[in-house]
Amino acid sequence: MKILLKRGKVINVFTGEIEESDVLIENNVIIGVGEYNEDDADIIKDVSHKYICPGLIDGHIHIESTMLTPVELAKVVLAHGTTSIVADPHEIANVCGIEGIEYILGKSEDIPLHVYVMLPSCVPATQFDESATELMATDLEPYYDVERVLGLAEMMNYPGVLSGDLKVKEKIHDAVARNLVVDGHAPLVTGRDLDRYIAAGIQSDHECSNEEEAKERVRKGQWVMIRQGTAARNLEGLLPMFNDRYKHRCILVTDDRHPSDLLEDGHIDNIIRLAVKNGKSVITAIQMATIQAAQCFNLRLVGAIAPGYRADILVLDDLEQFKVRDVYSEGEQVVDNGKVVQIEEPWIDDDLYERICTSFHMNEVSEKDFVIKPEGVADIDGMSEEEAQRKVRVIKIIEEQLLTQEWQTQVNLKKDNGIDIERDILKLAVIERHNYTGHIGLGYISGIGLKEGAIAASVSHDSHNLIVIGTNEKDMALAANHIKKLEGGSVVVKDGQILADMQLKIGGLMAVEPASYVAEKNLKVREMVYELGVPKEIEPFMTMAFVSLPVIPDIKMSTKGLIDVNKQERVSLFVDE
Amino acid sequence: MKILLKRGKVINVFTGEIEESDVLIENNVIIGVGEYNEDDADIIKDVSHKYICPGLIDGHIHIESTMLTPVELAKVVLAHGTTSIVADPHEIANVCGIEGIEYILGKSEDIPLHVYVMLPSCVPATQFDESATELMATDLEPYYDVERVLGLAEMMNYPGVLSGDLKVKEKIHDAVARNLVVDGHAPLVTGRDLDRYIAAGIQSDHECSNEEEAKERVRKGQWVMIRQGTAARNLEGLLPMFNDRYKHRCILVTDDRHPSDLLEDGHIDNIIRLAVKNGKSVITAIQMATIQAAQCFNLRLVGAIAPGYRADILVLDDLEQFKVRDVYSEGEQVVDNGKVVQIEEPWIDDDLYERICTSFHMNEVSEKDFVIKPEGVADIDGMSEEEAQRKVRVIKIIEEQLLTQEWQTQVNLKKDNGIDIERDILKLAVIERHNYTGHIGLGYISGIGLKEGAIAASVSHDSHNLIVIGTNEKDMALAANHIKKLEGGSVVVKDGQILADMQLKIGGLMAVEPASYVAEKNLKVREMVYELGVPKEIEPFMTMAFVSLPVIPDIKMSTKGLIDVNKQERVSLFVDE
Repeated sequence: MKILLKRGKVINVFTGEIEESDVLIENNVIIGVGEYNEDDADIIKDVSHKYICPGLIDGHIHIESTMLTPVELAKVVLAHGTTSIVADPHEIANVCGIEGIEYILGKSEDIPLHVYVMLPSCVPATQFDESATELMATDLEPYYDVERVLGLAEMMNYPGVLSGDLKVKEKIHDAVARNLVVDGHAPLVTGRDLDRYIAAGIQSDHECSNEEEAKERVRKGQWVMIRQGTAARNLEGLLPMFNDRYKHRCILVTDDRHPSDLLEDGHIDNIIRLAVKNGKSVITAIQMATIQAAQCFNLRLVGAIAPGYRADILVLDDLEQFKVRDVYSEGEQVVDNGKVVQIEEPWIDDDLYERICTSFHMNEVSEKDFVIKPEGVADIDGMSEEEAQRKVRVIKIIEEQLLTQEWQTQVNLKKDNGIDIERDILKLAVIERHNYTGHIGLGYISGIGLKEGAIAASVSHDSHNLIVIGTNEKDMALAANHIKKLEGGSVVVKDGQILADMQLKIGGLMAVEPASYVAEKNLKVREMVYELGVPKEIEPFMTMAFVSLPVIPDIKMSTKGLIDVNKQERVSLFVDE
Repeated sequence: MKILLKRGKVINVFTGEIEESDVLIENNVIIGVGEYNEDDADIIKDVSHKYICPGLIDGHIHIESTMLTPVELAKVVLAHGTTSIVADPHEIANVCGIEGIEYILGKSEDIPLHVYVMLPSCVPATQFDESATELMATDLEPYYDVERVLGLAEMMNYPGVLSGDLKVKEKIHDAVARNLVVDGHAPLVTGRDLDRYIAAGIQSDHECSNEEEAKERVRKGQWVMIRQGTAARNLEGLLPMFNDRYKHRCILVTDDRHPSDLLEDGHIDNIIRLAVKNGKSVITAIQMATIQAAQCFNLRLVGAIAPGYRADILVLDDLEQFKVRDVYSEGEQVVDNGKVVQIEEPWIDDDLYERICTSFHMNEVSEKDFVIKPEGVADIDGMSEEEAQRKVRVIKIIEEQLLTQEWQTQVNLKKDNGIDIERDILKLAVIERHNYTGHIGLGYISGIGLKEGAIAASVSHDSHNLIVIGTNEKDMALAANHIKKLEGGSVVVKDGQILADMQLKIGGLMAVEPASYVAEKNLKVREMVYELGVPKEIEPFMTMAFVSLPVIPDIKMSTKGLIDVNKQERVSLFVDE
């Protein structure tokens, strides 16, 4: 079948020119760009006064962060003009191991959004993380044969690369030997250390937040991914990269973007609009989001309106506003005047799907599991008042940052087991939930501001163990057990009652519902947290989700207790222990 | 082992900047670009005031046209700064079939010049060509597993692509399905035909001779290879491509370059110098010859001075003159102050080598094999004077072009069998020499200007049958038999004497000797032809080599007689037959 897009203003990403031209599509491929007649095609679409743009590519995204299944995500981003994404499924791989990757591959097969996959390089993220399993080079290796697998995902283990860790080396080697891409992740690394990191074969970076960092990476041969996500927003700092010397080595990515942001602001189209709003050339932004992303990943014959190229095509009413009207994916119209077609959910093995949806492998917990006791103390009540006065390390949240500080302060273990709402000292627990180990890391946290009840969630980077923050052990136990029952999600509890919850039953990370439902649910749960006293400046679940990630300084909580991130070692909760 | 190039002016092909910097090499890879100390390395080279440039890449070359073996070619071009070439071995494949490709691969393995191979797509070039064998997709397919094979070579069968010829489709499919490159060859094709040709998956073109042609190709997504060879010199016509919109989709290639040109003018460095002489930016020319060529062929981590990149490095005394001083290939110094190191000849299977060196499969010919007789005439002498007067189609050479014209004129078959030196009507023969078929195409040629004797050669595009031009049959037979005895080469004969010869025993195409010897021999043979009356404006052997290529209009000679190239059909020598 042949479709003719007649009289459009075609954006040529090779030359940066806009040409009045017809575009002829046959099946999934563009076969002509120039002057064509109505008898050349079966279907004629008059696109006069409209712009024709290649489909957009997100070069680095974690689907799990959108809380949506691949199909539900596809519905959202296709409407915003994204026809291809390069996904790193490392969240679900931490929970479900290789089956997490199989889930993402299976559930994105043959859908109109082209979902490419980078194999997760760091599962678990660190030696302190208790993920479901450790993924070794030999686990990943067979997946390079899958056509949609483009390489090795963000290599976060920067010390491992520099020290020549054999496991790391092997993973990089397997990708490089196949002439595939190895994505990087090395914020603030510079000079000789950056040289060594890049020399290991790492070809991109999405952690740049300023011009100097980004320019050094381009000079040293990396692709710079300009990231604009929900939490990390780097476009503004990287606007100087829209510069003749550097622009051709940059692409646009979202990394982590929440469903409400996707629905309200959009996806890669949103980054293009922001660039234009900041005075940058829309053509340059489009080139970054199309042909350059394709080049970065060696996606040949993708990312341009040219003969032989895959017919991923956007029809835009306006260029500067970048308002997507129609979308073609492989020559099929999937968005018509803003409305997305139905997408059939791909089938995956029933048993696999069942396992993905029942990823909580932990026993129920009880109130007493949350009691903090010093080493050798069997019974808190038996302690003297003096003994119960202990100096502890409290994790102090720094507002609007993922960084934390260590706050050493005195608590009374016999009074509410150290919880002190007045001083904003709450209890924190990270419960291992992959392998029935029964490990629970217990401690205190300050800066969240909860005044009553407890909150819990299964999204907690990167191992996604069960994380709970509470004002009392009873509500904490109820919250934890409720998440276990849901097989993942988030919950707000007060006085033994569930006030609000949201189920994320795909690995405890993603919902099965559509984006609008998920965004609304997410909002409701968050609002309920604010009713329990948390100030609105704080995004409680996102903040909580990073309390367990021991790669961001200064102090974090693991399933086995506190981690001093800077020293990369365990520390005791009790300062004098 | 670590080598430190200290204080060079490093050309950054990503940004176009020149930075004063140290370059640290470990084994075959660059591991640092920045400030390094003397204790960081085992060997320190002071390169202050010198330029550091990535090794140059020739994106399209036929090694056979240089008449040199891969090792001898390497010695020449390394000294000119070329560290990688992308070779299409279609000449030797026409002679030796798949074993020709094996020869090139085998004899270039692990030499300091990186020899990449594109698999010949058109062996034989046309249905009229009698090559040794026809290479089908199934013959080529296994060779895609060889790491140095980058794709399918120039698809000259443009009508086959447009008509959807199945054999052609299959060959293209095999490369595209592996995400590899398919090189194009479609001079003067434009508009819709070009769209269809490109849409088949063809990603480059090296036949552009003017700006419009080249710009259309860039707009349509192809890489434009700016060719500057011995015969075809397109740089001047394509200077407008050194333009901000188009330059990043162009690379530099030589295609066919003779040994004397390589020795006297150089290789890719020569094209860079010419571009500079024409007022173009040396940095742009370098980018075309390095990182862009690497991108075109998806050679990751090649073509730049950056961490992780292969240590193919040039040290230049001067940038505008582009004078190469030292060359490193994979971190080993292979050129020191202009002097090339010894290169060990790679071993290939003895039997294979023996077959490559004995590629003449024809019987000896005799004087009478060269006699032109009309259909049904057993004996020329028995013809009447009137019968012997025949109107024939003479191939008329157009000076300085590969094009020919048909000249219809009267000859007397009984007088010197139609040869008429006064009117410059000489005899021409193309003798099948691959499969003992005994086929000999006979006719007349004008425009060479030979006054005595005969010349013969085994280089005759693209099938490389034995081609002979002479003033008498006796000398023609001697010339032909001498070439057969040499197993290939060129020869000049007069009055039953060999005046000069040159042996090309590798498939009848390449010599085993070094470039200087080959260039000198080539010159001597040519000079001897001039002594037999050929005007110096004519390059006799190059002209002769294209008389048998039935893809260049208007009329050519095959082993089975004349071909009307425009009609793509056989025509009789006799106008009235």
